[in-house]
Amino acid sequence: MKRYNVAVVGALGAVGQEMIRILEQRNFPVKTIKPLDIAANFGREILFNGNSILVETSGKGAFTDVDIALFSAGGEASTELAPIAVEEGAVVIDNSSAWRMDPSVPLVIPEVNPEDLDWHKGLIANPNCSTIQMLVALKPIHDQYKINRIVVSTYQAVSGTGQKAIEELNQQVRDYVEGNQMSIRVYPRQISFNALPHIDVFLENGYTKEEMKMVNETHKMLDKTIKVCPTAVRVPVVRGHSESINIEIEKPAEINEVLELLKKAPCVKVMDDPTSNVYPMPIDAEGKDYVLVGRIRKDFSIENGINLWVVADNLRKGAALNAVQIAETMIARGLL
Amino acid sequence: MKRYNVAVVGALGAVGQEMIRILEQRNFPVKTIKPLDIAANFGREILFNGNSILVETSGKGAFTDVDIALFSAGGEASTELAPIAVEEGAVVIDNSSAWRMDPSVPLVIPEVNPEDLDWHKGLIANPNCSTIQMLVALKPIHDQYKINRIVVSTYQAVSGTGQKAIEELNQQVRDYVEGNQMSIRVYPRQISFNALPHIDVFLENGYTKEEMKMVNETHKMLDKTIKVCPTAVRVPVVRGHSESINIEIEKPAEINEVLELLKKAPCVKVMDDPTSNVYPMPIDAEGKDYVLVGRIRKDFSIENGINLWVVADNLRKGAALNAVQIAETMIARGLL
Repeated sequence: MKRYNVAVVGALGAVGQEMIRILEQRNFPVKTIKPLDIAANFGREILFNGNSILVETSGKGAFTDVDIALFSAGGEASTELAPIAVEEGAVVIDNSSAWRMDPSVPLVIPEVNPEDLDWHKGLIANPNCSTIQMLVALKPIHDQYKINRIVVSTYQAVSGTGQKAIEELNQQVRDYVEGNQMSIRVYPRQISFNALPHIDVFLENGYTKEEMKMVNETHKMLDKTIKVCPTAVRVPVVRGHSESINIEIEKPAEINEVLELLKKAPCVKVMDDPTSNVYPMPIDAEGKDYVLVGRIRKDFSIENGINLWVVADNLRKGAALNAVQIAETMIARGLL
Repeated sequence: MKRYNVAVVGALGAVGQEMIRILEQRNFPVKTIKPLDIAANFGREILFNGNSILVETSGKGAFTDVDIALFSAGGEASTELAPIAVEEGAVVIDNSSAWRMDPSVPLVIPEVNPEDLDWHKGLIANPNCSTIQMLVALKPIHDQYKINRIVVSTYQAVSGTGQKAIEELNQQVRDYVEGNQMSIRVYPRQISFNALPHIDVFLENGYTKEEMKMVNETHKMLDKTIKVCPTAVRVPVVRGHSESINIEIEKPAEINEVLELLKKAPCVKVMDDPTSNVYPMPIDAEGKDYVLVGRIRKDFSIENGINLWVVADNLRKGAALNAVQIAETMIARGLL
């Protein structure tokens, strides 16, 4: 079996750390692992399969011996470094939003549009966390019944913002318990005991970038005729994004049929026995590799409407896991 | 000015305490205040305008000298005691869900349907917290443009469940900080750092009672032709319910027109300058008497669609304040 030299750019970040853990857990065919991060972190180490490995500084020349570079170091780093990495011979799988809407770059969820990997030019974009879990749950329904419209409200965890946001929530909760003034650095306002209807920056149309990612990425990966109406909200959860999803489908569907469809869907776990308190929750999604779907019920307000409650680990399927699965799918398709 | 003998049933609960505070704050014309609670709480005291007042046991005979009885002691107590209180001569304003859908009982938000007070028979029901804030925000829009359909997802605070749930969240957060096992009593699962898509009990149609309250109470108070599609979710917030609301209206509307309409609406405060981080949040709603509305934007997925983000203090406008305002409105209409 062929083995690969794998670099992780942003190796000390929340997603980077998860990428390294997932490469281990899934026995990805790693020949060498190369953790890269900003210069300020030079000298720190990561553990990979029990071995301490020095974190090197990412930059020009760092990718000459790299087969696969998993990027999760923010949009700026990806804009600058991903083309360099490709030029130096690596296949880049980029978790930032920098390249997602570039028409020459495939944007891929392996369960949704693996065939788009075939036309890659060295750079593949990993979709936004909220879009990934939504489309993993909706793809089988769309294939069968054609989705015309999606109205979605999210309940997103702070780990989506990164390690510093996790620390901020933890610190604010400590401050609350100890009766101290809460410190606010990462978010515009307190996130503990609050709900922030603000993820990423606001655009002129009144939506946030996060919300428009859900619109645009759905169009690029699933179907550009689907209308998407999103509201993205941050809640005081460490890990696990939840989504309240309402869909309008073209053909009539019985709830039982949708349930059976989802039970057979790849990467989906149905948790839907509400009277026994079985429904997806962020605390159950943590560390899991599948998208949890529950509260599947008829929307009585329109003819062909369905509601779903969809939860996934935003650092895993929403980011690191999907990136590693892209690499695995490329290997399976003979592209690496 | 006429003054009234006011009883508060459930005086030691989260809403009951808030009722007493609001009667003080609004200088409600109180002649005497009579805090009532279950027998187990006999001997405890409340403060009213600086005076300690003994909490008495609620039951038959407790209402003979009472003009207005504000009930917030749960559905069972209201089912049993409200008719007794009415028989003993009190006008009952009941915060439980026990009487809301009874066709002989007016269900009232003073800003939405004050005229329904005129046909009361001694018992008036206070609506569900989630419905109140939604309809205060939507009433002016419905009057002008006719709302055909509402898709709403809620982000509800634990205080909606009562004092014990507030204590449970606080204790879980303390346990988290101190590294202890979290204790779970009030909710089926941990509420701290989690999102529970489960408020009140599940019904056969897959919806919760809380969700169906939003459907049925909207029909009873605003317009029975409006289609409502709700998802109710509990989040780790102490106080302040948030709602992501999507509406489909009959007549086309410019966002600016809707904004101006809401700026003039009673009990509404528009907070809508997102690029300056101005939008409603639970931490800003706490202790406020109005419903905060923001993120008012066009829904591009349908022809006449609008999104709003609506936040209010669930213990005040969502419960105690609305109940006191019902009493005030009855006085103003010469009904008391």
